[in-house]
Amino acid sequence: MGKVLVFGHKSPDTDAICSAIAFAELKNKLGEEVEPVRLGEIGGETEYVLNYFHVDAPRLVKSVADEVPAVYLVDHNERGQSVDDIEKVEIRSVVDHHRIANFETKSPLYYRAEPVGCTCTIVNKLFKENGVALSKTTAGLMLSAIISDTLLFKSPTCTQEDVAAAKELEAIAGVDAATYGLDMLKAGTNIADKAAEE
Amino acid sequence: MGKVLVFGHKSPDTDAICSAIAFAELKNKLGEEVEPVRLGEIGGETEYVLNYFHVDAPRLVKSVADEVPAVYLVDHNERGQSVDDIEKVEIRSVVDHHRIANFETKSPLYYRAEPVGCTCTIVNKLFKENGVALSKTTAGLMLSAIISDTLLFKSPTCTQEDVAAAKELEAIAGVDAATYGLDMLKAGTNIADKAAEE
Ligand SMILES: [Mn+2]
Ligand SMILES: [Mn+2]
Ligand SMILES: [Mn+2]
Ligand SMILES: [Mn+2]
Repeated sequence: MGKVLVFGHKSPDTDAICSAIAFAELKNKLGEEVEPVRLGEIGGETEYVLNYFHVDAPRLVKSVADEVPAVYLVDHNERGQSVDDIEKVEIRSVVDHHRIANFETKSPLYYRAEPVGCTCTIVNKLFKENGVALSKTTAGLMLSAIISDTLLFKSPTCTQEDVAAAKELEAIAGVDAATYGLDMLKAGTNIADKAAEE
Repeated sequence: MGKVLVFGHKSPDTDAICSAIAFAELKNKLGEEVEPVRLGEIGGETEYVLNYFHVDAPRLVKSVADEVPAVYLVDHNERGQSVDDIEKVEIRSVVDHHRIANFETKSPLYYRAEPVGCTCTIVNKLFKENGVALSKTTAGLMLSAIISDTLLFKSPTCTQEDVAAAKELEAIAGVDAATYGLDMLKAGTNIADKAAEE
């Protein structure tokens, strides 16, 4: 099997970026060659997260069929939210927490959706189910995604599973979710404020 | 939460019937009220299986929205293979091993698809992931479904995971897959032969 790309939706949020990085780490540790990429510019919140944990932003792509025959999707499934040439490649797996719509495959695939607040909550399960240890850095990115998608556990979409996953990730990452999370969410707001002022 | 129905596809095969019964047992043991039902007549092979393990065929239904607001799907996802009034109920989860097509939900759901030979191979994982013990009878039904979908592990769709699951289920059910499996597959063929002769 050759290289596979993994990416979240267009106009990526912190979960779209961090679940792609985490899923790629899982697959790489399982012996596959997987590269996380992104479909658009990252926002201020995600920039804060990547800087905090000293991680480079995934490579920006506008198409995928020219480089790989197959892809993994995270944090989305709908065609319109995916890469423009999604119809030209095999979707080998999806890990997501959204409704399913405008999605179709020619072949059976691995599809893992759960009605939780964040894709990284599911990716955390996948690491455990596969017996793969999380790095400190990736745990920090995944915690950030959960904080982002659940607005620090306050969104109506937040479940007990998100809270439990965040607790585990907090311990591995060695950061305090409440303090770090507020700074992170503020970083997103500041940029938004600035943009509005311009 | 009120009662939920679970069912496989129209023109049910052994996996459609047995994965519904097994999934209902899992959910019932987890404290939910779930009834397995079927969307059509069972064939000779499935009749042999149910007789062998002394299990009644699930109740036949032609519609579901008149009894429940939500359903679980097993062994299928496509609208055309499902109950006629599927659009009128919430699909709360899907466990399947087919491609995804003509499927759409309004809300996030639990969707578990894996590219393996049989839905019961995935249901076996769900029992283990949830720490729920399988009854001897249900293990026998699930083993039967794997034998049926993989033609005794000889189909091109059969994976190592199906073989491994069958080994586990064989031990719990206390039957020899090779001997029992041949009799079971023959029971299906006999009926088909008879029908052709008529
Ligand atoms: Mn997202
Ligand atoms: Mn998300
Ligand atoms: Mn079937
Ligand atoms: Mn099947």
